[in-house]
Amino acid sequence: MHIEVVANIGEARSDDLLHKTVIVVDVLRATSTIITALANGCKAIVPVETVMKAKEQVQEGDLLGGERYCKKIPGFDFGNSPLEYTREAVQGKRIILTTTNGTRGIQKSMKADHILAGALLNGRACAQAAIALKKDTVILCAGTQDVFSFEDGICAGLILEELTYTLGEKNVLINDFGLAMRGSYLHSKDRLFETLVSCANGKKMSRSGFHDDLILCAKSNIMDQVPIWEHDQMILLPRSLARSTF
Amino acid sequence: MHIEVVANIGEARSDDLLHKTVIVVDVLRATSTIITALANGCKAIVPVETVMKAKEQVQEGDLLGGERYCKKIPGFDFGNSPLEYTREAVQGKRIILTTTNGTRGIQKSMKADHILAGALLNGRACAQAAIALKKDTVILCAGTQDVFSFEDGICAGLILEELTYTLGEKNVLINDFGLAMRGSYLHSKDRLFETLVSCANGKKMSRSGFHDDLILCAKSNIMDQVPIWEHDQMILLPRSLARSTF
Repeated sequence: MHIEVVANIGEARSDDLLHKTVIVVDVLRATSTIITALANGCKAIVPVETVMKAKEQVQEGDLLGGERYCKKIPGFDFGNSPLEYTREAVQGKRIILTTTNGTRGIQKSMKADHILAGALLNGRACAQAAIALKKDTVILCAGTQDVFSFEDGICAGLILEELTYTLGEKNVLINDFGLAMRGSYLHSKDRLFETLVSCANGKKMSRSGFHDDLILCAKSNIMDQVPIWEHDQMILLPRSLARSTF
Repeated sequence: MHIEVVANIGEARSDDLLHKTVIVVDVLRATSTIITALANGCKAIVPVETVMKAKEQVQEGDLLGGERYCKKIPGFDFGNSPLEYTREAVQGKRIILTTTNGTRGIQKSMKADHILAGALLNGRACAQAAIALKKDTVILCAGTQDVFSFEDGICAGLILEELTYTLGEKNVLINDFGLAMRGSYLHSKDRLFETLVSCANGKKMSRSGFHDDLILCAKSNIMDQVPIWEHDQMILLPRSLARSTF
């Protein structure tokens, strides 16, 4: 399997994603939130870039999620913290979620055969799903406004390590950026929380009082659910396909 | 000190380098060769991008270095292997060296206050020189045709680690890409040769019979010479300025 890690959305070329599986990674916090909400029984997530688009898409019974400047948007049901998306709050619901980088990552990947959402939370499950889908795989670090974000790189490294562990080193061909991310993950895997706090986004979240979010988003391989893009929304990949190792 | 690592030349913005010290890194092999040649008594290196420019620049007494398709250029004195640039061959000479990515890295850095050449060979000395020059520092990984090369990232990580060790963690502010490179270096620092061989460029060099070059280029901190850009050529930074720790 060819595996390529791309540093940020600006660097991704749509044509290079043709016929591939793309795993979009936005650890702080879009993909962590999407995974948590779906794992808690949410029916589907519709990621949109702007508040206006969220309001256009919302239908009766839907919930709205998102924030601007670290505050919940007036009239919305949730902010961007995965901790808000509890089973009680989301079960059976469809959620329209505003995320800038996560949504752009998905839009950029439209030529891919499959688009998955990855985070540290479901890294191993993402790797297993990518193997089951039998395509060359691109791990697209969302980053922040076309700049690389370390937490996404660490997560790419985790997914790569899981892919390599299952497939065997000889059966994967990894680009140089991926090799660097794997090394970087292996160096910090025993202190993921401290590593997340050292990143630009982690520092900002820490200052804004989102300490508990960082604790949750830094946990690796605690969920076996893998969101997949289907009919313009993110739903859960059927477990039979995800070939869970849990 | 602010320290930024840039993944490849295409990502560098000239204006962001204004008033800074830029360390250009092209481990395989431009900067490793420049350091080795100057350490062996070569008077100056003039890096140029094309064979035609090399022939335009050459003056009586100069030597010519460079290769195309892993072969020495007809009429040239050296290829691109640092092992060829021995004391006997280079002492007191000026060398015109064709390198694609290394030269572009230097050209891109013209707005900087200082341009140094870094490789694993002189990583610690580069860090000491950057501290002595008292400017915010950018480590510019040359990469290969605007794609990140892992060996340059590993070297950026080494220089960062040396900077952090000397200045103290609290006195440096490192961008996310730099944090990732430092982690990646720390993970592989005890097996730098194996790491270089695993990179795209390392594999290619290995197949082309440059095994001994890889052995040399993978050695860290064995030279205390730091090339600096002055009057359109690379010369050695005076040792008093480099504040060597050797």
